[in-house]
Amino acid sequence: MDNPVRAWLVLAHAHVRVNELQNLLDLCGDISDVVGRSHSKLASTGLAAEKCAAIASPDPKAIDSARAWLEHERHHLVTWGSDDYPELLSQVPGPPLALYVNGDVDALHLPALAIVGSRNPTQGGRRNAHDFARHLASGGLAIASGMAQGIDAAAHEGALEAGGKTVACLGTGIDRVYPPANRALAHTIAERGALVSEYPLGSPPEKWHFPERNRLISGLSLGTLVVEAARRSGSLITARLSAEQGREVFALPGSIHNALSRGCHKLIRQGAKLVETADDILTELGHLAGHLRPSADDAEYETLRKFLSHDPVGIDELGKQSGLTIDQLSSMLLILELHGEVESFPGGRYAKKEPLQA
Amino acid sequence: MDNPVRAWLVLAHAHVRVNELQNLLDLCGDISDVVGRSHSKLASTGLAAEKCAAIASPDPKAIDSARAWLEHERHHLVTWGSDDYPELLSQVPGPPLALYVNGDVDALHLPALAIVGSRNPTQGGRRNAHDFARHLASGGLAIASGMAQGIDAAAHEGALEAGGKTVACLGTGIDRVYPPANRALAHTIAERGALVSEYPLGSPPEKWHFPERNRLISGLSLGTLVVEAARRSGSLITARLSAEQGREVFALPGSIHNALSRGCHKLIRQGAKLVETADDILTELGHLAGHLRPSADDAEYETLRKFLSHDPVGIDELGKQSGLTIDQLSSMLLILELHGEVESFPGGRYAKKEPLQA
Repeated sequence: MDNPVRAWLVLAHAHVRVNELQNLLDLCGDISDVVGRSHSKLASTGLAAEKCAAIASPDPKAIDSARAWLEHERHHLVTWGSDDYPELLSQVPGPPLALYVNGDVDALHLPALAIVGSRNPTQGGRRNAHDFARHLASGGLAIASGMAQGIDAAAHEGALEAGGKTVACLGTGIDRVYPPANRALAHTIAERGALVSEYPLGSPPEKWHFPERNRLISGLSLGTLVVEAARRSGSLITARLSAEQGREVFALPGSIHNALSRGCHKLIRQGAKLVETADDILTELGHLAGHLRPSADDAEYETLRKFLSHDPVGIDELGKQSGLTIDQLSSMLLILELHGEVESFPGGRYAKKEPLQA
Repeated sequence: MDNPVRAWLVLAHAHVRVNELQNLLDLCGDISDVVGRSHSKLASTGLAAEKCAAIASPDPKAIDSARAWLEHERHHLVTWGSDDYPELLSQVPGPPLALYVNGDVDALHLPALAIVGSRNPTQGGRRNAHDFARHLASGGLAIASGMAQGIDAAAHEGALEAGGKTVACLGTGIDRVYPPANRALAHTIAERGALVSEYPLGSPPEKWHFPERNRLISGLSLGTLVVEAARRSGSLITARLSAEQGREVFALPGSIHNALSRGCHKLIRQGAKLVETADDILTELGHLAGHLRPSADDAEYETLRKFLSHDPVGIDELGKQSGLTIDQLSSMLLILELHGEVESFPGGRYAKKEPLQA
């Protein structure tokens, strides 16, 4: 198990892309055998010279410090092709070769919504981001964002307040906090959700990282909600990526006198779904549910199905009867709801849905 | 000239529809010859019994009072097929047989935008209606609305404040003001624009008149702007009619916490154009300009074209040079702008536009 981790770190540090990886595996058969090959051998796959050099002569200090970081029980390297690699992210163009994760890897497999927007939102925008995140996270959706100040931070906080899961995709190395003002938030996310980065440890917040990082936010998610954004805004990049990845784009409308509604209105004109309530989002996400890899196994779903009836049952009652935890239940129920098997009722109650007549 | 007016009044009072009129003309040859025909002869065209009765035995008092009303120089009966009948309105399904007009008949031939919305708007909604109407009316568009309280009244007032034209379509007889609170506004509109009704004099504000009246508001207009409207609102009927008439539908977005934005958001989801500025509307109306019947004649357009150059010229200067009034010029210039012949510049200046390269 040791050699592969080192090999993945070497390849990740060399900025090897997933499409380049396949050529290297064709040459060497196994990832562990890639490292140690000569520069010229590696170059024969068409790999750029500087990447060949980085693989042939890796920086031992960088590799060692990454391996030291990985010794912590909540620190993970999630690599392309492994079971831990998020299914939705694997489907996007240009997926990352490996993800450094600080926190709960399972959070990357929950059905997720990205919530993004301005770093300088209005009070109303901040409150909307918080409230939508809270409502959707309490229903079992993970909330993905970029841990920037403003809308991003409000979305993470709303999800945490609901006791839900949130995922922060970073434009720095996983061991750095940017912006520094979000240090406490970063620690809470690591404890109760996940921080994710594809950059080597210690990477500074390079300007070009952020648009690239945005494809992780949208790529981990079934859709992206833009809460407030100026007409030219990084959030519109995330929205565009989301559309290109075949995911939903949602936008909150606002007053024509609010400059931070301009970006949202632009998206709506381009076809984004205009959203007034969190339920609007749940309705739309239904048809994307086929993409989901359930985090519970089939036996657990069968157990749950046994205790569901056509009369609404409270989630606490379902927990007692089935022996499943409330956390498990809320994400399983959401997935069943998105699949159209289950209907939710006020007060956290759920019922089996009548199948559609053929 | 006398007999036809009486005949049109008899037919209008009998609620004869435009499609029924053609059958009557096929039978009788001339409108004046319709009145006086026997009930059974009229019925042979398929006309309903009560309409035949109303034509065969018209109420002389009602006809006389309408003829007395028409003696005022600003009171008109605009009948189907006449030159005064608005071209745009003639294109809609179920056009009115005749219009009672109090004011300026020419106002019905200007390129118009309908502005409608809630009777109980927010302050912001009222201000938006007023400001959009003022801006667009000062550019030469007539503003059509329904003279209800709230958004309708604010739109009429904005147009009047700009010294522009406004048209109020009534759900009562032309001689009645509804709601009574808008009495002063009705008088100003009659003096400087036009009041329009298809109902006989004295008709009360029947509930069913208003949805029917809405087709006049949208039918006289190139498009309809909904400023604020609840999810279920008469304004949405006007918007739907506008779409069915092949005209544009525009809606102002607003906060998700404003219940009066719900109707607008519903329209945007159904395909209405999301509008942030008055210029958004002018841009969209461009391609509908082909429907317009210029209110000035060709010779006047030729005169104007002579004084336009590729350097912007002020409208006052154009007035001095061409001998055309500022009123004439502003509507002619708007039409040329919508046709793509003219470009407008800040400060009321206009220039000939370069023709597109073939």
